[in-house]
Amino acid sequence: MSTQFKTVGIIGKYGDPGIAQTLSTMASFLTDRHLAVWLDEETARTVPDLGLDTATRDELGRRCDLAVVVGGDGTLLTVARNLADYDIPIVGVNLGRLGFLADISPKTMLDVMENILAGNYCREERFLLDACIERNGHILHESKAFNEVVVHKWNMARMIEFEIHVNDLFVDVQRSDGIIVSTPTGSTAYALSGGGPILTPTLNAIALVPICPHTLSNRPIVVSGDSRIAIVVGDCKADHAQMTCDGQTNLDLRDGDRILIDKRPKPVCLIHPAGHDYFQILRAKLRWGSKRE
Amino acid sequence: MSTQFKTVGIIGKYGDPGIAQTLSTMASFLTDRHLAVWLDEETARTVPDLGLDTATRDELGRRCDLAVVVGGDGTLLTVARNLADYDIPIVGVNLGRLGFLADISPKTMLDVMENILAGNYCREERFLLDACIERNGHILHESKAFNEVVVHKWNMARMIEFEIHVNDLFVDVQRSDGIIVSTPTGSTAYALSGGGPILTPTLNAIALVPICPHTLSNRPIVVSGDSRIAIVVGDCKADHAQMTCDGQTNLDLRDGDRILIDKRPKPVCLIHPAGHDYFQILRAKLRWGSKRE
Amino acid sequence: MSTQFKTVGIIGKYGDPGIAQTLSTMASFLTDRHLAVWLDEETARTVPDLGLDTATRDELGRRCDLAVVVGGDGTLLTVARNLADYDIPIVGVNLGRLGFLADISPKTMLDVMENILAGNYCREERFLLDACIERNGHILHESKAFNEVVVHKWNMARMIEFEIHVNDLFVDVQRSDGIIVSTPTGSTAYALSGGGPILTPTLNAIALVPICPHTLSNRPIVVSGDSRIAIVVGDCKADHAQMTCDGQTNLDLRDGDRILIDKRPKPVCLIHPAGHDYFQILRAKLRWGSKRE
Amino acid sequence: MSTQFKTVGIIGKYGDPGIAQTLSTMASFLTDRHLAVWLDEETARTVPDLGLDTATRDELGRRCDLAVVVGGDGTLLTVARNLADYDIPIVGVNLGRLGFLADISPKTMLDVMENILAGNYCREERFLLDACIERNGHILHESKAFNEVVVHKWNMARMIEFEIHVNDLFVDVQRSDGIIVSTPTGSTAYALSGGGPILTPTLNAIALVPICPHTLSNRPIVVSGDSRIAIVVGDCKADHAQMTCDGQTNLDLRDGDRILIDKRPKPVCLIHPAGHDYFQILRAKLRWGSKRE
Repeated sequence: MSTQFKTVGIIGKYGDPGIAQTLSTMASFLTDRHLAVWLDEETARTVPDLGLDTATRDELGRRCDLAVVVGGDGTLLTVARNLADYDIPIVGVNLGRLGFLADISPKTMLDVMENILAGNYCREERFLLDACIERNGHILHESKAFNEVVVHKWNMARMIEFEIHVNDLFVDVQRSDGIIVSTPTGSTAYALSGGGPILTPTLNAIALVPICPHTLSNRPIVVSGDSRIAIVVGDCKADHAQMTCDGQTNLDLRDGDRILIDKRPKPVCLIHPAGHDYFQILRAKLRWGSKRE
Repeated sequence: MSTQFKTVGIIGKYGDPGIAQTLSTMASFLTDRHLAVWLDEETARTVPDLGLDTATRDELGRRCDLAVVVGGDGTLLTVARNLADYDIPIVGVNLGRLGFLADISPKTMLDVMENILAGNYCREERFLLDACIERNGHILHESKAFNEVVVHKWNMARMIEFEIHVNDLFVDVQRSDGIIVSTPTGSTAYALSGGGPILTPTLNAIALVPICPHTLSNRPIVVSGDSRIAIVVGDCKADHAQMTCDGQTNLDLRDGDRILIDKRPKPVCLIHPAGHDYFQILRAKLRWGSKRE
Repeated sequence: MSTQFKTVGIIGKYGDPGIAQTLSTMASFLTDRHLAVWLDEETARTVPDLGLDTATRDELGRRCDLAVVVGGDGTLLTVARNLADYDIPIVGVNLGRLGFLADISPKTMLDVMENILAGNYCREERFLLDACIERNGHILHESKAFNEVVVHKWNMARMIEFEIHVNDLFVDVQRSDGIIVSTPTGSTAYALSGGGPILTPTLNAIALVPICPHTLSNRPIVVSGDSRIAIVVGDCKADHAQMTCDGQTNLDLRDGDRILIDKRPKPVCLIHPAGHDYFQILRAKLRWGSKRE
Repeated sequence: MSTQFKTVGIIGKYGDPGIAQTLSTMASFLTDRHLAVWLDEETARTVPDLGLDTATRDELGRRCDLAVVVGGDGTLLTVARNLADYDIPIVGVNLGRLGFLADISPKTMLDVMENILAGNYCREERFLLDACIERNGHILHESKAFNEVVVHKWNMARMIEFEIHVNDLFVDVQRSDGIIVSTPTGSTAYALSGGGPILTPTLNAIALVPICPHTLSNRPIVVSGDSRIAIVVGDCKADHAQMTCDGQTNLDLRDGDRILIDKRPKPVCLIHPAGHDYFQILRAKLRWGSKRE
C-alpha cells in the first residue's frame, strides 16, 4: 500500500495509563504497514514501554507527516497548540466518548486509519488565535488558543471592568465576570455555556461572548475572523483578573493591560474520516435528536 | 461644485404626511445645487404638492444615481428591497430617532448631504437574502429580505416542526414557534429579541435563530453567508405556518414546503456620513453606555 | 381489600384508538376489585366497546372519587380543566413516554394502582389559573388554564404592545411576540422554551415570561401566586392578538381588552405513586443526568 | 412633633469622605427634632468630626430604633447583615444614583424623613439567607447573605462539579462556573446577570441560578423560601472553589464540603417613602420605559 503519510507521531492523553492498549494497537497497526512511528516522550512516561522510539513534541512536529492523538478534546487542544508551527495534520482518537475534535472511536480506529492511509479522508483547516498581553507598551507574554481566550475576574467576588476594541474601533465598556473570545472550534465549548452562538467550523469569524454581564443588553457579538481584538482591563487591582487560553494556561493581569487577540495566520489541519459530517457530531453532542417531552 | 451624483430620487415613509417639511427642505437643497430630483410616486400621494417630478420606484432605480430615504429603518428596509436590482446607493434620513439604517438626523441632514455630494462619505455594501418556496418541485414564490426570513407558526397555538439543511447537509429537526434566518443587518432586529448574536454588518454570515425551541440545546447557529439554507416544513396542516420577510410580507406554507434561502448576489449599497461608526450606533441603540445600577 | 376509592372514571386520549388495550386492562383490574367503573363518553367513541357504562365528563366529576387518565400531559391538562370544579383526584397513566403529569407507565400501572387502592400514594395539590377577557367593562369570556395563559400576536408579523399590571400596580409596557403567564405546572412547558425559570410544583408563584421582547432587559418575573395579573392589549388592530390557554383554546383580542388572570381558588389534586420525586422526573425529562461532552 | 423613632443611628459608606455633607445635614435635621443621634464608629473615622456621639455597629443595633444608611446598595447590604440580629428598621439614602435598596435621594431626604418621623412611610420585610459550611460533619463557618450565596470556581480555569439538594431531595449534579442561590432582593443583582428571573421582593422563594452551566438544560429553578438547600462540592482540589456571600466575603471550599443554605428566621425591615412602588424602581433601573428602537 502506498500512502502520503510515511512517519506518524503518536501522542496520548497526559497522565492516563488507560490509553496504553489503544496506543499499542495503533502503533502495531502502523508499523505493520511499514510506517515509521514515533511516540511522544511525555506520553511514553505515562504508559508501559511499547518498544517505540520516542521524541519530544517539537521533534514530532519536525519529523512526522501525521499526528495521531489519543485522548479527549482537551488533549487535542493541547497538541494542536504544541504543533501549531509545524505542517502536520492531526487525527483525533477518543477514549470511547465522541468528541467534537477527537471524533474517531477506538473501536473503529483501525478501519478509519486504513482509509486515511489509502487517501480516503476529509481534511479540514481550522484557525487558532494568537493572544498577547501588552503592558506599558511592551509585549509581556504570547499565547495560542484553539478554543478561546478568556479574560475573567479572579481572586475576588466583584465584576471586572474592561474596554473592547475591534480594529481600533471602540466597542464598549463592560462590567461582567469576563469575556470569552472564541474561535468557531471553541463555539461549542465554554462560549456555548456562556450563551454564545454555534459557529460552523470553517466560518471566518470570532465570537465575543460576555460572561454574566451587568448590562443586560451586552450580548454576544460575532466579528470577522480577520479582526484585531483588544481587551483593555480597567479599574482592576493586581491579582483581580486573569487571561486563560483553552482553559489550560492562566496569566495574571494588571490595571491597564491590553490583551491583543487575532487569528493566527497558520491554521491547524484536522483529518476526519471520509464522510465526516459536523452536524452529525453536533446532533449527537447536543442531543438534538432527542425531544424534551 | 462637482459631484458624482447627478440625479437623486427621494422616497418618504409610507402614509406619513409629517415628513413633508423634511422632504421639501431636502429637495430644495438638492435643486439649489442643480441636481435633478425625482419624487417617489407613492410618497407624492402622501404629502402636499412639492412641485417635483414624480416617478415609480422602478423608474427611480433606473434613472437616479442616489436614493434619499426619509423614514425609519422599516421604510429603508422596504426601499432597499424595491431597489435591489438597480445600481443605486441609499442614504437614510430618520425622523428624529436614530436608526440602525436611517442614521442621519433631519437636523444635520443638509450638512451631511453637502459632504456626501463633495464625495466625503462612507460607502458600505450589505447583502440581502433571496427566499423561495418550493412546493411539489415547483418554485411557488420568490421574495427578498434585508433583515430576515422567518418561518413561523400561525393560526394555532402549538409549535411547528421543521427540518433545517445547510448546503444539503441535514442539521436538525426542530419543534418551536419558528426560526429566524437573519442577515448581519437583521441581527440587531427580531433575531436579537429571539436570543441571536449581533453580527457586524459586513460579516459574510447568516444566523439561524430558533424561536422558543422545545429542545433547550437548540441554540443560534451562524453559518457562512455563502450557504444555501433549506427549511422543510413538516407535520403542518394548511394554514399553520407562514414565511415572513422583514416583518412585512406573509406567505402561507403547507406540509412539505421547502423554503430555500441564500445570499442575493447583488448587495445593497448604503451611504453613511464620513466617520460612520457602527459600534457608536450600537452603543446608542442598546444603551451600552448606561449602567444598570 | 378496602379502599377509599369506590367509583373510578376512566378517560383516554382524544381520538387515539391505540389506548384501547391499556384502558381495557385498567378497567378489568378495577372491576375485578369490585370498584364501580365509568368510561368517559368521548373516550368510548374512540375505542371499541369495552363493555363499560359511559358518562359525560361532568357526570364523571360528580359520581367518581378517582379519575384515571390514559394519555400524555396534553390529555391530562384537558381533563384537569374539565374536572376542575369537582372533588376528584386524578391519576395519569402515560402511553409509554414519561410525562411531567402523566407519570405512571402502562407497564407498571397495575402495581401502582394496587398501591393507590391500598392507600399507598402521594397526593399533590396544584393550582390552575382563571383568565377572563374584559372588554368595555364587561366580562366577555372566562377560561381556565393548568399550564399557562398566553397573550400573543397572531395573523401579522409585527410585535404586539401591551401593559402589565400586578395587583393594580403598573409594571411595564412591553413590545414583543407576547407574554406567557405560567403556573408552576406550566413552568416546564412553553414558559421554559421562552426562557422562563422552573418553579417547583407546589410553589405559590406565577411566572410572567416575555416572548422575544424588543427591550432586552424585559426578563421573566416571578410574582406571588395570590397576585391579580392584568394584561392590557394596546395599539392592536382587530385580529392581531389572541389569548391561548394551555395551547388548546384561542380567543381573538381587540385593542383595549384587559386579560385578568388569577389563581383559581380550588386546586387540582394529583395522585402520584408513593415515593414520587419531582426532581427525578425533571432529571429524566431534561436529561440532566447526561453530560454534553 | 411626636414620632415612634427616638434614637437614630447613622451609618455611611465605608471609606468615602464625600458623604460628610449628607451625613451632617441628616444629623442636624434629626437633632433639631430632638432625636438622639449616634454615628457609626467606622463611619466617624471616614469623615471630619461631626460633633456626634459614636457607637459600634452592635451598639447602634441595641440602642437605636432606626438606622439611616447613606451609601449605595452595597453599603446597605453590609449594614443589613450587621444589624440582622437587632430590631431596627433601615432607611437607605443613596449618593445621587437610585438604588434598589437605597431608594431615597439626598435631594429629597429631609422631606422623606419628615414624613417617616410623622409615621408616613412604607414598611417592608425582606428575608436573608443563612449559609454554613459543613466539613467532616462539623460546622466550619456561618455567614449571612442579603442578596445571594454563590458557590463558584476559583483559582483555576476549569468548571467545578457539585450536587444540589433541596429538602434532602437530590436535584442534580452540575458542572459549571458555579451556582447563585439568591433571595428576592438579590434577584436583580448578580443572579439577573446570570440569567435568573426577577422575584418580587416579598415573594417567599429562593432562586438557584447556574453560572455558565455545561449542560444547556440546566436552567434557573425557583424553590420555596422555606426550603433547605445543600450544595455539595465534588471533585474539587483545595483552592478551586469558594463560597461568597453578597460579593463581600469569600471562603475557600474543599472536596466534599456541604454548603447548607436556608432562610434566616428573622427578616430585615426596610423603611421606604410612602407610596413606594417596587415596579417604578425596576422600570428606572432596567430602563424599561425606554424602547430599543
